[in-house]
Amino acid sequence: MPDRVYLDWNATTPLRPEARQALAAAWDMAGNPSSVHAEGRQARRLVEDARAAVAAAVSARPQDVVFCSGGTEANAMALTPGLRRGSGWPVQRLVVSAIEHPSVLSGGRFSADAIASINISSAGVVDLDHLRALLADGSPALVSVMAANNETGAIQPIAEAAEIVHEAGGLLHVDAIQALGKIPIDIKVMQADLLTLSAHKIGGPKGVGALVLAEGVQAIEPLLRGGGQELGRRAGTENVAGIAAFGVAAAAAAAQLADNADRLQALRERFEKGLKQAADIIVFSEDVPRLPNTTLFTVPGLKAETAVIGFDLAGIAVSSGSACSSGKVQPSHVLAAMGFGKDLAQGAVRLSLGWSTSETDVDLALEAWRKLADALLRGRRNTA
Amino acid sequence: MPDRVYLDWNATTPLRPEARQALAAAWDMAGNPSSVHAEGRQARRLVEDARAAVAAAVSARPQDVVFCSGGTEANAMALTPGLRRGSGWPVQRLVVSAIEHPSVLSGGRFSADAIASINISSAGVVDLDHLRALLADGSPALVSVMAANNETGAIQPIAEAAEIVHEAGGLLHVDAIQALGKIPIDIKVMQADLLTLSAHKIGGPKGVGALVLAEGVQAIEPLLRGGGQELGRRAGTENVAGIAAFGVAAAAAAAQLADNADRLQALRERFEKGLKQAADIIVFSEDVPRLPNTTLFTVPGLKAETAVIGFDLAGIAVSSGSACSSGKVQPSHVLAAMGFGKDLAQGAVRLSLGWSTSETDVDLALEAWRKLADALLRGRRNTA
Repeated sequence: MPDRVYLDWNATTPLRPEARQALAAAWDMAGNPSSVHAEGRQARRLVEDARAAVAAAVSARPQDVVFCSGGTEANAMALTPGLRRGSGWPVQRLVVSAIEHPSVLSGGRFSADAIASINISSAGVVDLDHLRALLADGSPALVSVMAANNETGAIQPIAEAAEIVHEAGGLLHVDAIQALGKIPIDIKVMQADLLTLSAHKIGGPKGVGALVLAEGVQAIEPLLRGGGQELGRRAGTENVAGIAAFGVAAAAAAAQLADNADRLQALRERFEKGLKQAADIIVFSEDVPRLPNTTLFTVPGLKAETAVIGFDLAGIAVSSGSACSSGKVQPSHVLAAMGFGKDLAQGAVRLSLGWSTSETDVDLALEAWRKLADALLRGRRNTA
Repeated sequence: MPDRVYLDWNATTPLRPEARQALAAAWDMAGNPSSVHAEGRQARRLVEDARAAVAAAVSARPQDVVFCSGGTEANAMALTPGLRRGSGWPVQRLVVSAIEHPSVLSGGRFSADAIASINISSAGVVDLDHLRALLADGSPALVSVMAANNETGAIQPIAEAAEIVHEAGGLLHVDAIQALGKIPIDIKVMQADLLTLSAHKIGGPKGVGALVLAEGVQAIEPLLRGGGQELGRRAGTENVAGIAAFGVAAAAAAAQLADNADRLQALRERFEKGLKQAADIIVFSEDVPRLPNTTLFTVPGLKAETAVIGFDLAGIAVSSGSACSSGKVQPSHVLAAMGFGKDLAQGAVRLSLGWSTSETDVDLALEAWRKLADALLRGRRNTA
C-alpha cells in the first residue's frame, strides 16, 4: 500500500528493523529450548537473552519475567486469587480502574462478584480517594491500574496508587502494555507487584507478551499446565523467534525512549494545533499528563466510524476508540467512565504516532481532517 | 552450526521455506486485524486465509478453527467441562489415555478427581476394552486420545475409539499435534469432536496452534477473555504473521503428505536396519502402525542422557523421551504406561526425521551410533 500514513500505533506498531533482524536470525534455529542438544541450547540462549533484556527494560530480575502469548494472556495470568508477596496475606478480591483494557475488566480468574471498579475523573485519571475508600475495609485486594490509558493516553498515578494499596495490605498490578517505550516504566519506582507487557506495542511481533513479577511475589498458579517451561509458570514450547524479537524491541525502546518521546510530543503538538485551527475540537485528557504519542479528540456531532473511513479513504489509518477486538461498535467504555455521554463518546477519533511518523505524515493527516471537518460542518449546518 | 544433523523433528521442526516467506511477507503489515482501516483489513485477510488453509488440511469448516498460542493452549481450551455437541449431554468428566502429552494429562479445566486414565498395551496402543469399561456407567465423558504418540510414533485407533465414545454419549478430543503432516488427519473420518494442532510440528513457527471443532460442537468457554477475537472464543490480538505461516505450512504439509511419508518410511527402515546390525536393540511399538518418521529404541543398560550427549558431540541432534518441557530427567510416562520398567525406560532414545532428512543424515547417525554402541558394549562387558 504505497503512500499510506499509519497513525494507529496504539492498536499495533510496525515491526522495528532490529526486531525483524532478530526474528530472521532465530527462524533458522530448529531447536526446542527444552532439548539438551546444541540446537536446543542455542534456542534456550535466545530466550534467556531476551528475558534479561525485557527485565532490564523495566528494572526487574530476569527470573521474574514470564513470557506468554501477549498482553491478554499476561493480564489473565496476573489476575489470580491467592497471590501474595513475601509473608503478606493472599489477595481475595479484585479492584480495577474503570478504564482498564477489557482483558483486565474481564477479571481473569476472579469471580464476577469479587470485582469492584474504581471511579475515573472527567480528565481520565483514576480517583485515588475512591480507591482508598474501596480498600478501607474488606479482605486484601489485588488492585489493577494501568500505567497509561490506550485510548486517551492519560498517565495514571501509579506510585501514589501503590502506596495506598500496600498500606491496605494489597497488591498492585500495572498493565504497562501501552506505556512501555513511551514513558519510563520501572517496576521498583512504580512499586508495582505485577506488571504486564506486550511486544507488538513496542515494535516487536504480535503474539508475544510477558508478566513481570516484583521480587518476592509468590509463584502464580499457571494458566497453561503440563510442562516445566518458564520455571513451571507457563507450559508450552516457547515462541523462540518472537521472544528473541521482543527482547530486542524492549532494549531498543528503552534506549530510544527519551529522544523518541520528545520527538513524538512535538509532532503531537503540531497535530493538535492544526486540528484546532480547522474546527472547534475537544481533546480528551488534554489537561493531564498523557503519553506523548496519543491524541483522542472529537467534535460534537462527529460520527467516529465515518471519520475513520474518511481518513482511510484519504490514505490515513486512524482508530475510533480502542479497536482492540472484533466487530465492536459500542461507544468507548473509557469515555463512559470519564462521564461523557454516548453522543460525544461515539465521535471519538484516536491518532497515535510512532518512531517512523514524520512531519509530513502529520500534515497529511491534518489535510485529510480539514476536508472531513468541512464536510462535517456543512452537515451540521444543514441539520440545524 | 555447520555439519550438524538434526534428527529431533518430533520436538520441533525447522521452518518450511514457504512458511518463512509467509512470515516475512506478513511482518511488514502493521495492521491489527480488528482495525477497520486498510492495514487492518489486510491483516484480517491473512488470518482468514490461514484459517481456511488449516481447516482444509483437516477437512473442517473455517469457522470451527480457533487460533491460539500453541498445542498446550489448544489442549487447555479443549478440555472443558460442559462441552456438548448438538442436543447431546454436556460432558462432566474426562477420560485420557495414559500416553497423552502432559498438557492433556494435566486435565485442562477438569478437576483432578474427575479424570480417569485408559490403559495402554505393551505395544503402545490404547486399550479399547478398557475405554469401553470406563465409559460403561457414569456421566457423559470427554475422552482424549492422541492420533499418534510423540515418543513411540504409535498410531492410535481413533475411529474405533470415536465409535465407543459416541455410543456412550461422550465426546472425543484428538490431539493430532504430532500426527499432522505425517499421516492423513480428517476430522470427519476420525469422527473427532475436537482436534488440536500445532504449527511448529509441521514446519510453521513456534507459538501458534489451533483448536478445531467438529460442526455442532457448542462454543467453548474462553480461556482468555476480554476481546471478541476468534468469534469470541479466544481474546487477544492475533499473531498475524505466525498464523499466516501456519496456514502456509498446513497447506504444504497436506500437499506433500503422501510423498513425504513414503520417503521418511524408507529412511526410517534404513536407520532401524543399521541400528540392529550394530547392536541388539529394542524398537518400541515396532509391531504396530507407527508414524513414518519416528524411531524410539534402546539397548538394555543404555543411559539415554549419555547417548543423547554422545550423539550431540558427534553432531547429531536426537532426543531422550519426550523432551518437551524443561529440566525433566524422569523416565518416560509413555514407556511406563506400556509396562516397561525404569531400567529400559531411562534408556530410550528417539530419532525423528523430517522432509529435509537425507540418506547421508541417516548414515551419519548410524556411524555415531556404532561408536556409541561399541563404547556401551565395552562398558557392559567391563561391569559384567
